[in-house]
Amino acid sequence: MESEAVRKARAARQASYALANADTTVKNNALTYIADDLLAQASSIMEANAADVAAAREKGMSDAMIDRLTLTPDRIRGMAEGVRQVIALPDPVGQTLASWDRPNGLHIDKVTVPLGVIAIIFESRPNVTVDAAVLCLKSGNATVLRGGSEAIHSNVALAGVIRHAIARAGLPSDAVTIMENTDRALVGELLTLRQYINLAIPRGGAGLIRMVVDTAKVPVIETGSGVCHVYVDKDADLDMAVSIIENAKVSRPSTCNAMETLLVHKDVVQPLMEKLVPVLKARHVEMRADTAAREAGGTGIEMASEEDWRTEYNALIMSIRTVSSLDEALDHIRRYSTHHSETIVTENTDTAERFLQEVDSAAVYVNASTRFTDGFEFGFGAEIGISTQKLHARGPMGLEALVSYKYLIHGKGQIRQ
Amino acid sequence: MESEAVRKARAARQASYALANADTTVKNNALTYIADDLLAQASSIMEANAADVAAAREKGMSDAMIDRLTLTPDRIRGMAEGVRQVIALPDPVGQTLASWDRPNGLHIDKVTVPLGVIAIIFESRPNVTVDAAVLCLKSGNATVLRGGSEAIHSNVALAGVIRHAIARAGLPSDAVTIMENTDRALVGELLTLRQYINLAIPRGGAGLIRMVVDTAKVPVIETGSGVCHVYVDKDADLDMAVSIIENAKVSRPSTCNAMETLLVHKDVVQPLMEKLVPVLKARHVEMRADTAAREAGGTGIEMASEEDWRTEYNALIMSIRTVSSLDEALDHIRRYSTHHSETIVTENTDTAERFLQEVDSAAVYVNASTRFTDGFEFGFGAEIGISTQKLHARGPMGLEALVSYKYLIHGKGQIRQ
Repeated sequence: MESEAVRKARAARQASYALANADTTVKNNALTYIADDLLAQASSIMEANAADVAAAREKGMSDAMIDRLTLTPDRIRGMAEGVRQVIALPDPVGQTLASWDRPNGLHIDKVTVPLGVIAIIFESRPNVTVDAAVLCLKSGNATVLRGGSEAIHSNVALAGVIRHAIARAGLPSDAVTIMENTDRALVGELLTLRQYINLAIPRGGAGLIRMVVDTAKVPVIETGSGVCHVYVDKDADLDMAVSIIENAKVSRPSTCNAMETLLVHKDVVQPLMEKLVPVLKARHVEMRADTAAREAGGTGIEMASEEDWRTEYNALIMSIRTVSSLDEALDHIRRYSTHHSETIVTENTDTAERFLQEVDSAAVYVNASTRFTDGFEFGFGAEIGISTQKLHARGPMGLEALVSYKYLIHGKGQIRQ
Repeated sequence: MESEAVRKARAARQASYALANADTTVKNNALTYIADDLLAQASSIMEANAADVAAAREKGMSDAMIDRLTLTPDRIRGMAEGVRQVIALPDPVGQTLASWDRPNGLHIDKVTVPLGVIAIIFESRPNVTVDAAVLCLKSGNATVLRGGSEAIHSNVALAGVIRHAIARAGLPSDAVTIMENTDRALVGELLTLRQYINLAIPRGGAGLIRMVVDTAKVPVIETGSGVCHVYVDKDADLDMAVSIIENAKVSRPSTCNAMETLLVHKDVVQPLMEKLVPVLKARHVEMRADTAAREAGGTGIEMASEEDWRTEYNALIMSIRTVSSLDEALDHIRRYSTHHSETIVTENTDTAERFLQEVDSAAVYVNASTRFTDGFEFGFGAEIGISTQKLHARGPMGLEALVSYKYLIHGKGQIRQ
């Protein structure tokens, strides 16, 4: 008896052929029906969601977690609106990236194609069911969804609405499949099916990402781990620095683009801490610092350990380290960064350019918050995740990250010498 | 006691920082010294090579294998010439791929960066030591080389020349490192070092590729397996078809871009086989075919089995299948292709366009030999391998496949709402 993983992955692979060749209009029709049906079916979606919420309460899940799980009419409207925005985006499939002629008369076109079948492994928020499936669909990819067990009824209900809408548009409903059994062993199996799955994208916390990256035999795009830095240089505008630091830590501390570590040049640690500490205390940020920053910062600051430099807190906690030069800051970042986002605050353009040149992260900023690392903030109109790896896609991933290419060659009988 | 794999990978990682920031001029100087020194050191290189050849003879290696192993003055001159051609290629690092402004005033540049450290796992020909190291160097990447044990002395000698030349140019010699112990266990370990190695590229036969893909925890670009097809459509120019088929099978049967399977529309199988069989017999190609093609082809053709459809012969053997429509041809290719290269021979433009649209391989041809799938034939001026996967790079890989990108954002203090 075949496992659900094999059945669903194979079904998605079968559906992917029609999807790869579907007109933009047909795909957009499917998206329109999805948006319409999310609203039309809101009651039954929320009914399924209520079952998940009740089970979560019974298990004693925290209020914050239950809130992430809950679907309200507003949130469903938000999902539908998100789908309509994707309809408006250009189709990334069938684009000619390059076109040239060879001396022997061959004409070559490099054109974009879908990746094929993408497995989305996620937890918590049921939104991902819709957001991810819709981006995959627009880019001509079939999807195998596997969400967290806590949201199983919600996710299955949402996937059902999506599948029905896809069929209405004349596309195979298996263009979106969902694992109904969320057993860990099945995910492991799913991630080995190289013959059916072209890519796996994990969306969730560090534990989930680690599990997917370590288990997968299929290609994975490593997402989301963000030990992000702000470096305040000796030539920084300190008021700007305070504003950036506050925003980068406090605006949404649980996101991957939130800063974790502040690096300060020793020449400005005193005046910076004098301005910064009251602001962070007012925002309830716990600080852990080295000796120089602690002395400059006054009371209430813990001593930082090496463990703090490598920790992604995802909370209102910040580690602070004093450095004696740009070189030291670069060395610290090289050692502890997860290559997500780093900012330098400085008015010195040479220093800024050296930072931009030498820091190897997906997004490197001068004088702006790390919180801008986001597909919508970058202007992509979509985001399936933020890649921290260097192959295939890096940083915020829009529709372009979900396609590959092939070479089409037109000849008149040429043979190779 | 640390293993050689960890020591060399870490050394390469350390060297990669200077390399990532090296001027184009400095890298080209290093390449110039490599080309010069290959010639200046030819005698000692050939002396090391003689030791490998002697050991190979003693082991009873075949003449063909020994030939692949052997370095002659001509072959060394060819290596040096290959290095000089890379000097002439544009630097793929530091290119601005896109540049734009956001409504909030942020300016974003998407610029290319090296991948970092690339492990090249190869066998047989010592040329790869030079070819691969030089492409990595030009693209700002450090290299960890691990060649076959049969060429160990040659590879170490070549790597030594390269390292010395690199140091002469003022770059760290560990920009190119080589595993001196070729134990299988060490390769396995090397391929798990995600903290030091950004990418592994296998160069060799199916067994080596399989081992690397299955073992690696680091990202891998799957190269080289080529079950390539030629489909002769009912509207084909049959003389062109014969010319293309002969070239695609016979010109270099051991390469990945050589054809393995011929698909023929039933309406033309008779006239095609009449023209084709004498040509293939004269070129000593063994044919294995289905019933219809055997009957059309006359004597001396074996019966093909399903195993033949999935076999990459790498020899003068070709399987032949009759199909009743383009749909059947597409279905066969979808089932058995390794997504490398496929050709349709037809004068019908609608049929040609459908083939181009629906075949999902790295290179899809109309009326030309599959043997053109090659970095030099495509005009890239270089080739580190031919990728059969869809992520990061597909088809012939030139310098552009060896880089990633990062986003550089210039602000004036912007924070996210």
